[in-house]
Amino acid sequence: MIKVGLLGAGRIAGVHATAISSNPGSQLVAVSDYIAENAEKLAAQYGCAARTTEDIIADPSIDAVLIATSTDTHSDLIEAATGAGKAVLCEKPVDLSLDRARACQKAAEGKPVMIGFNRRFDPNFGALKAALDAGEIGKPELLSITSFDPAPPPVAYIKVSGGLFRDMMIHDFDMANFIMGEAPVSVTAVGSCIVDSEIGAAGDVDTAVVTLTYADGRIAVIKNSRRAVYGYDQRVELLGADGLLQAQNMLENTVVKSTTAGVTGAKPTFFFLERYMPAYAAEWAAFVDAITAGSALPATLDDGVAALAMAEAATQSAKTGAPVALSSV
Amino acid sequence: MIKVGLLGAGRIAGVHATAISSNPGSQLVAVSDYIAENAEKLAAQYGCAARTTEDIIADPSIDAVLIATSTDTHSDLIEAATGAGKAVLCEKPVDLSLDRARACQKAAEGKPVMIGFNRRFDPNFGALKAALDAGEIGKPELLSITSFDPAPPPVAYIKVSGGLFRDMMIHDFDMANFIMGEAPVSVTAVGSCIVDSEIGAAGDVDTAVVTLTYADGRIAVIKNSRRAVYGYDQRVELLGADGLLQAQNMLENTVVKSTTAGVTGAKPTFFFLERYMPAYAAEWAAFVDAITAGSALPATLDDGVAALAMAEAATQSAKTGAPVALSSV
Amino acid sequence: MIKVGLLGAGRIAGVHATAISSNPGSQLVAVSDYIAENAEKLAAQYGCAARTTEDIIADPSIDAVLIATSTDTHSDLIEAATGAGKAVLCEKPVDLSLDRARACQKAAEGKPVMIGFNRRFDPNFGALKAALDAGEIGKPELLSITSFDPAPPPVAYIKVSGGLFRDMMIHDFDMANFIMGEAPVSVTAVGSCIVDSEIGAAGDVDTAVVTLTYADGRIAVIKNSRRAVYGYDQRVELLGADGLLQAQNMLENTVVKSTTAGVTGAKPTFFFLERYMPAYAAEWAAFVDAITAGSALPATLDDGVAALAMAEAATQSAKTGAPVALSSV
Amino acid sequence: MIKVGLLGAGRIAGVHATAISSNPGSQLVAVSDYIAENAEKLAAQYGCAARTTEDIIADPSIDAVLIATSTDTHSDLIEAATGAGKAVLCEKPVDLSLDRARACQKAAEGKPVMIGFNRRFDPNFGALKAALDAGEIGKPELLSITSFDPAPPPVAYIKVSGGLFRDMMIHDFDMANFIMGEAPVSVTAVGSCIVDSEIGAAGDVDTAVVTLTYADGRIAVIKNSRRAVYGYDQRVELLGADGLLQAQNMLENTVVKSTTAGVTGAKPTFFFLERYMPAYAAEWAAFVDAITAGSALPATLDDGVAALAMAEAATQSAKTGAPVALSSV
Repeated sequence: MIKVGLLGAGRIAGVHATAISSNPGSQLVAVSDYIAENAEKLAAQYGCAARTTEDIIADPSIDAVLIATSTDTHSDLIEAATGAGKAVLCEKPVDLSLDRARACQKAAEGKPVMIGFNRRFDPNFGALKAALDAGEIGKPELLSITSFDPAPPPVAYIKVSGGLFRDMMIHDFDMANFIMGEAPVSVTAVGSCIVDSEIGAAGDVDTAVVTLTYADGRIAVIKNSRRAVYGYDQRVELLGADGLLQAQNMLENTVVKSTTAGVTGAKPTFFFLERYMPAYAAEWAAFVDAITAGSALPATLDDGVAALAMAEAATQSAKTGAPVALSSV
Repeated sequence: MIKVGLLGAGRIAGVHATAISSNPGSQLVAVSDYIAENAEKLAAQYGCAARTTEDIIADPSIDAVLIATSTDTHSDLIEAATGAGKAVLCEKPVDLSLDRARACQKAAEGKPVMIGFNRRFDPNFGALKAALDAGEIGKPELLSITSFDPAPPPVAYIKVSGGLFRDMMIHDFDMANFIMGEAPVSVTAVGSCIVDSEIGAAGDVDTAVVTLTYADGRIAVIKNSRRAVYGYDQRVELLGADGLLQAQNMLENTVVKSTTAGVTGAKPTFFFLERYMPAYAAEWAAFVDAITAGSALPATLDDGVAALAMAEAATQSAKTGAPVALSSV
Repeated sequence: MIKVGLLGAGRIAGVHATAISSNPGSQLVAVSDYIAENAEKLAAQYGCAARTTEDIIADPSIDAVLIATSTDTHSDLIEAATGAGKAVLCEKPVDLSLDRARACQKAAEGKPVMIGFNRRFDPNFGALKAALDAGEIGKPELLSITSFDPAPPPVAYIKVSGGLFRDMMIHDFDMANFIMGEAPVSVTAVGSCIVDSEIGAAGDVDTAVVTLTYADGRIAVIKNSRRAVYGYDQRVELLGADGLLQAQNMLENTVVKSTTAGVTGAKPTFFFLERYMPAYAAEWAAFVDAITAGSALPATLDDGVAALAMAEAATQSAKTGAPVALSSV
Repeated sequence: MIKVGLLGAGRIAGVHATAISSNPGSQLVAVSDYIAENAEKLAAQYGCAARTTEDIIADPSIDAVLIATSTDTHSDLIEAATGAGKAVLCEKPVDLSLDRARACQKAAEGKPVMIGFNRRFDPNFGALKAALDAGEIGKPELLSITSFDPAPPPVAYIKVSGGLFRDMMIHDFDMANFIMGEAPVSVTAVGSCIVDSEIGAAGDVDTAVVTLTYADGRIAVIKNSRRAVYGYDQRVELLGADGLLQAQNMLENTVVKSTTAGVTGAKPTFFFLERYMPAYAAEWAAFVDAITAGSALPATLDDGVAALAMAEAATQSAKTGAPVALSSV
């Protein structure tokens, strides 16, 4: 039973608190937040202590920390926590700066750091990956990832987000790496601002298509939009030599209504909390299992840096439309 | 926050323990079982006390009990617990004997007793019912319920189960009552033993079709089989004056594979624990909400007796094939 | 190349004219109708002669006739045409009177008469039957047929139709025989008038559920409604020892629209002409092939009489709700 | 009733012959082929004359010609037939050379020439376009076209095909223009040879992703593969401000089988003849209607040249990966 400190007490921290509590291999012992009141509230709900971040990291009885604070603190906290001998599960991204992330990667080399690429633990994407690994469609050739949010975040958030490629598509870059089993050699990006002109005024795009090419000729294409009014659209499709695998959306329910207006089913689950709730629990379980067994973590700091490098390359490519070699970033 | 005693510590009791613990309005304080060791194990996991059933019922600090013991104890425990002033959520069926169930109904008249018809709380059937109530398909005319288990239970269980109509179809009788909003006037049953001849030797059927007719001419048909090798098949379909509603199966995942062999998706979730896990939590939440608010329970002892009467009528009809008036049982 | 006379020039005769013309093994040489003008119009369109029915039957150069006249003429025309040595494809039903149909069956014994049970030639039901025959779901156990019309016919038609069981469900009785490979031993029917009270006033039902039992314990259930506002609902579902087969509806197109209102697809094809257009062509091709090869016809006069006997039994059962042995009609 | 000469007697000419014959507004009067025997065979089947191409074009009683000959003859035949005053429906592409196609476009300016972009007439893509035009998903933002062949053509064909972009993706370029209602401003292509190395040896790619950008920021992405072993995969998906439209594959039948191995449905219809058979008939009907009414043709020589220019741009872009402005080709 590992003792866990939770750094951050926001919405996603609440999801993690449930996962930590209900997992038989872990115990939530402390929570911190830069707003002390939030930490106290969450601590009360889960019967643990509200403490400061420094205090938690300094406590030798705590085995692991889950970092669910704001992005700009991730690298520092990873370094501090690993320095204090703790296992770490940190929310993505490692950092908005690729240089800073790489410094962190170097500092934490050999330490147990997992990055929270929750989608790897989604049962649907997991089943797709398992079918691929089992050889069910032969050699993969052409990967397509569709990833649309239901609605854009506030422009204030956009401004500090690092941009669509670092903030949103980074999940899809990791998904591509997860499925293809390696990083691409080049990244070509096209981005537009057609959903909300204020996003463009803030210097970002809201709609983008990125093409990835691999050393052996395989191709992947990622589509992002900040707005799909029907809900969170999260699909992966992979053409292989012997067939096609598609992971489709999860729906709110299975009811279908047939009337004179057509045949209507439920929408996709609304957003990431609904869609990926089972994935968060599975992610935590995988962390606990690996830490307990001393085995390899299923999504590492290296993976976090690799996805960030792709985001950097895409950001550059979107300015010219020309391909950017991943080796150049 | 209501304090809850859990009577029974078997598999389904474990599911209920999770629901009670994770609900912010209830606290699991004690668990009992006729095998004391089982109670102790469950109590340890959820941090509550292992006690005797009598002790729990006698404890005035306990507000409610959840009865998850064997069927033959249900009526007695409902009477004892309500007599001690406790609110009750009891697993179905009330009793295998309609007479005994009616006596219990009388004894507990006016007391807060909810019967665990978990399917009413399934999000899919709930959405179908909500669409019907919202008038989306007009007046209902023809209801179809498909309910197949993945595999027959052991014959030893069949022998004490009360038979397919009381043990398995009773859920579907309640579903018909839930959707149609009233009991039928007559029941016509056809039953066969074609899955496993040992079930027939034990005096039961393993495949059955029951037709229900309602006072205003509406019709319902229920299909049961003890074996659907592809998994737990739980579907409801309702034709109305303005359209059709279908609640389809939930699938293990959303992955679809296209190969030269065809286009293959995942199977339905395997059995009731997988399919109805969200329903058990919602059922408990509905119980807590109603008890706390003092409002009407969403599935009552009357509902339990009504479904049992339909099972009795179906059992009679299956012998002759002729309709049995519900008023005659 | 067989020479064909078409008896009748109504809507369904037009469908058959196209099938006859476009089949490389048959030539449409003459058409008749009790309204001569209709025959002339159809003859002009297909470049053949408009003649009287008697004339066509008496013409020794004509090899086969397709009978698409009103039901009350079917038996007489089958007898006349077979008496004149012609092969016959006759629209269902053979007759509204079971006695008359049996007399016709006797008169035409050994003659090549096919009954137009077009649904046997639907590519979907055909694929289901082929999968069953290939052993893909093992021994069949429980068959369900859903068959809803988009809207009731005029009450004037209802009055002369012979009633829902003889006019509408007869197709489903034949489908059950086609799939199960034999006739049932008993028929239990429940019928209601809930769609349109004028249908009840005309002595008929508009909604019905019929349960069929087979000698070896297998069960089939057929659901009919005269009104499904979303279109022609034609589905077959068969549970077997090793799985389930479902033939679902054909849709108007494959477009799916996702909006805030849900995920909406096209309705089923509207009515029998749209849904079964490919089946009519395949039915005619099967007739031509069998006649040309001298092989067994795929839907015989015996099949027509068998379905009619089931309709008779259902009509009787609907009055009492009690099962009617097929051997008693 | 327009009189039609069919130039070419190969496989696709046979499809057109059926469409011409069965359309009440057109009559097939002559067919030619460079192999006279093929023309004679087709003429016999459809009861028309086998003549030379020159003879057909010179015959003033013939109103229209359908050009279904090899690609290298298209431009010459369009010029000859329009020069002789005939309306023309010509199979795509206009020519493999963009310069030659533009010369033909100039020569035939103002003449009634339709290019056979059959997919515009597919009922599914047509329904998607109609829903878009009806405003059902608001302003379009991101278009995705998936277009996979079941198997690569012979390498001998690849060598004379003009390459994947001109031979295969040209259909998708036209589909993009059809749906977006205008040509893009730039084309970015990535191509690979991963299906069959002999295709690469012949100087072509077998897998490609092309991104199109539009003047107002909209984006389209087209995916092509020469091999999808499960059949002809033809899907279009369009994200708009108010929703998503998807035109999915047509399936061989609607049967679904559930077993322990999963839930399996039929594959997509095998190849273009099966999938687009209704589209060929609708295409011809649209041609006849427009010629008869003197109204605008629904797919013009300009459309043919526009798609060819996109293929030219994609071919250039695939060499460098950099975007190619459509105005530069």
